[in-house]
Amino acid sequence: MNAPTNPAHLLPDVSQMPMPDALLVALQSRFGAQCSTALAVRTQHGVDESVFSVPPPAAVVFAESSKDVADAVALCAAHRYPVIPFGVGSSLEGHLLAVRGGVSVDVSRMNRVLTLNAEDLTVTVQAGVTRKQLNEEIKSTGLFFPIDPGADASLGGMAATRASGTNAVRYGTMRENVLGLEVVTASGEIVKTGTRAKKSSAGYDLTRLMVGSEGTLGVITEVTLKLYPIPEAISAATCSFPSIAAAVETVIQVIQLGVPIARCELIDHNTVRMVNAHSKTTLREEAMLLMEFHGSPASVKEQAETVQGIASDNAGQAFEWASTPEERTRLWTARHNAYFAALQSRPGCRAISTDTCVPISRLADCLLESIDEVNASGIPYFLVGHVGDGNFHFGYLIDPNDANERVIAEQLNHTLVHRALALEGTCTGEHGVGLHKQGFLLSEAGEGAVAMMRSIKHALDPHNIMNPGKIFAW
Amino acid sequence: MNAPTNPAHLLPDVSQMPMPDALLVALQSRFGAQCSTALAVRTQHGVDESVFSVPPPAAVVFAESSKDVADAVALCAAHRYPVIPFGVGSSLEGHLLAVRGGVSVDVSRMNRVLTLNAEDLTVTVQAGVTRKQLNEEIKSTGLFFPIDPGADASLGGMAATRASGTNAVRYGTMRENVLGLEVVTASGEIVKTGTRAKKSSAGYDLTRLMVGSEGTLGVITEVTLKLYPIPEAISAATCSFPSIAAAVETVIQVIQLGVPIARCELIDHNTVRMVNAHSKTTLREEAMLLMEFHGSPASVKEQAETVQGIASDNAGQAFEWASTPEERTRLWTARHNAYFAALQSRPGCRAISTDTCVPISRLADCLLESIDEVNASGIPYFLVGHVGDGNFHFGYLIDPNDANERVIAEQLNHTLVHRALALEGTCTGEHGVGLHKQGFLLSEAGEGAVAMMRSIKHALDPHNIMNPGKIFAW
Repeated sequence: MNAPTNPAHLLPDVSQMPMPDALLVALQSRFGAQCSTALAVRTQHGVDESVFSVPPPAAVVFAESSKDVADAVALCAAHRYPVIPFGVGSSLEGHLLAVRGGVSVDVSRMNRVLTLNAEDLTVTVQAGVTRKQLNEEIKSTGLFFPIDPGADASLGGMAATRASGTNAVRYGTMRENVLGLEVVTASGEIVKTGTRAKKSSAGYDLTRLMVGSEGTLGVITEVTLKLYPIPEAISAATCSFPSIAAAVETVIQVIQLGVPIARCELIDHNTVRMVNAHSKTTLREEAMLLMEFHGSPASVKEQAETVQGIASDNAGQAFEWASTPEERTRLWTARHNAYFAALQSRPGCRAISTDTCVPISRLADCLLESIDEVNASGIPYFLVGHVGDGNFHFGYLIDPNDANERVIAEQLNHTLVHRALALEGTCTGEHGVGLHKQGFLLSEAGEGAVAMMRSIKHALDPHNIMNPGKIFAW
Repeated sequence: MNAPTNPAHLLPDVSQMPMPDALLVALQSRFGAQCSTALAVRTQHGVDESVFSVPPPAAVVFAESSKDVADAVALCAAHRYPVIPFGVGSSLEGHLLAVRGGVSVDVSRMNRVLTLNAEDLTVTVQAGVTRKQLNEEIKSTGLFFPIDPGADASLGGMAATRASGTNAVRYGTMRENVLGLEVVTASGEIVKTGTRAKKSSAGYDLTRLMVGSEGTLGVITEVTLKLYPIPEAISAATCSFPSIAAAVETVIQVIQLGVPIARCELIDHNTVRMVNAHSKTTLREEAMLLMEFHGSPASVKEQAETVQGIASDNAGQAFEWASTPEERTRLWTARHNAYFAALQSRPGCRAISTDTCVPISRLADCLLESIDEVNASGIPYFLVGHVGDGNFHFGYLIDPNDANERVIAEQLNHTLVHRALALEGTCTGEHGVGLHKQGFLLSEAGEGAVAMMRSIKHALDPHNIMNPGKIFAW
């Protein structure tokens, strides 16, 4: 376990290949104004939500169709030059940074909902459609798509990183909710994976292989998704607990009893304190669960009552529940404001987010030890958790001008990840590996499994042009 | 679309390599009495539930540990000789037949439940544990594992074929319920895929790649599974409909309304008639839905009432529901007896099972056209459907001594599969490709996708020793 000890260690390995002139000529010839080398455009495509700073890609192609993507990839393939898919740029792990140089293929103009099959609860969209756009476009059908990462990400990007969010405890992640894909391969071929059948045993699961492959095996151009009926009734509840252990024990019992809870979020006492300071609220400064229940009115009421009983048995206090949209929003204010309240608590700070996920029985131990450590470090933090899934995010609030704080934050994360791995968890529940967690992936999966991944990469992308430098070293 | 026209076309491509003497010596030296070449043992390991007849494997190794499997594979790899994983032999698609020769690696002695984590709703088992054994061993915990293919299959085999069954409409298939695996690779290395975390974005989804790979990428030796709380209440319901279309429309509305139905099976009027003849029952000889609801007592009651209302709107008749185990069993008798009733309806016959799955909005059309065709053919049939998923099985009841009937049955299946594919469905919902559906897979997935599968196979099994001849041609 070699913890990072200096800021240089935290820099990604950058060695950008210059773009061949002939490739630029070919791209400009094929794409005209859809191809840009303007510095402002490239810069916008060379920045994401990660902490890394890397020079921008050499060019940007604004694809307007799958054919555009295929042609762009084929041209890059002919010159063995990297291709980097770009959706909205909300990656947290440096996925779109041009560490080997490359052409950014921006799919944001591919933003059409192609086929809605309401009876089958499926929809096929172009990769640039965002999750909020999708829900807006389908709301008249009475259906919705539940996966909700913090950002209004593109559905192609969400598939590529195997994203999830607060609804995953009930509805699963992109792994469970992508039925099929259209993908442009490393040779520029357009391939469909999966059908609209709800289940299949037809050969290797290429869909699940592409979901979470972070652009390293191909560019996702279309996504076929499962949809769900908008629940007849939705209620929200909040409850405070004297300890994180009591809150987590409540969640374990709720899940063991089979309550189909739709959302189950935790914020710790420290984060509640930040919210109170920010929003002028008077919430109990204790660990807090924020929950949501979906179903028929009777079912939702029954779920809330069951959970309240369990919470009381675990010393839960101040249980509140609400069913109108306004009241639900009020109850969830603390969760919605946690991030901004935390940033405001230390003006000028930057949050470095962790993303570990552990089996829920190990969650309280993992959280308590990690909180002790961050308290001992002196770095302010906030903590929010998709606690029903065992996934949680510390936000270490560092001074971006203090290199030492960055090092301490990385050390805290390093210790946290290795704790999570020892507890049979994962280094990343929903953000992906990208540039930042390649060492953690090796610790988690082991050399044999990473060697299998690398073999697959070499087989499907023999010239390493698809988003090179991400997930693992070539 | 080249339909099969003669029995020879239906034979698998068999070219068995002789086992190298040195390999046999090495296996016998390493495994002693765990290695058998007795004809009776080999014959038992060379027969499954498919229609194919292939000479048996050259030897059988009874593995008692993952290390045994790894050593057997490593020895075979050294001699570039095929390895065929064997669980209980319940494959329907020839998965365990030694079409290239090979050593059958029998994991049935690897039958221990290794680690039960009730709080996390997870369990890790050796690959030879069967689904019924697992449920028996964990029943005191109040948890169960829902995936229920017809056979009491091994969990390793179920993972390898991406199996499902009647509970998939609510609980998903092996795709959704395997958290992680231990696998012996083609070089004889033991690799873990996945962790016990409920979700992860850590690199390529090797778990989902192995699930459904039919032994062609490695031998599954351990399986970590999700478990579920045994529902507080279970109720069953049956209802008859004047047409398949009315029954299917009922199911569509039930699912669109978000009723969390746990089982939803269809049998057609012809099959009900067979059941009445076999079981001396007086069920309405109409399309019939058989359903099950899981939840709290109030929720289950509400679900049944909601479904009854929808069924009535669709001209459903004779709606019955029951909550005691005895009454539930009585209601479901028709489904449980369908297979045997069908076989008895034509003494001496053999059933050839189809396995297509289509989007549910296409299901009625697909079924009605297919029923018309089978009626026109003169071949007796039964029909059972996991209708909530759009997956259904025709059983063509052929005279095994009449080669012409076999050809007709294959022609019916051929037409059915291509109809399902045109309706955006799959050739196999839960049985796998094996020997029988390789042409269908190509039609379904397309050459580009099958080429990707083949590239992965070549990368992970460069000498083609892992269950060769299955899924696609090398």
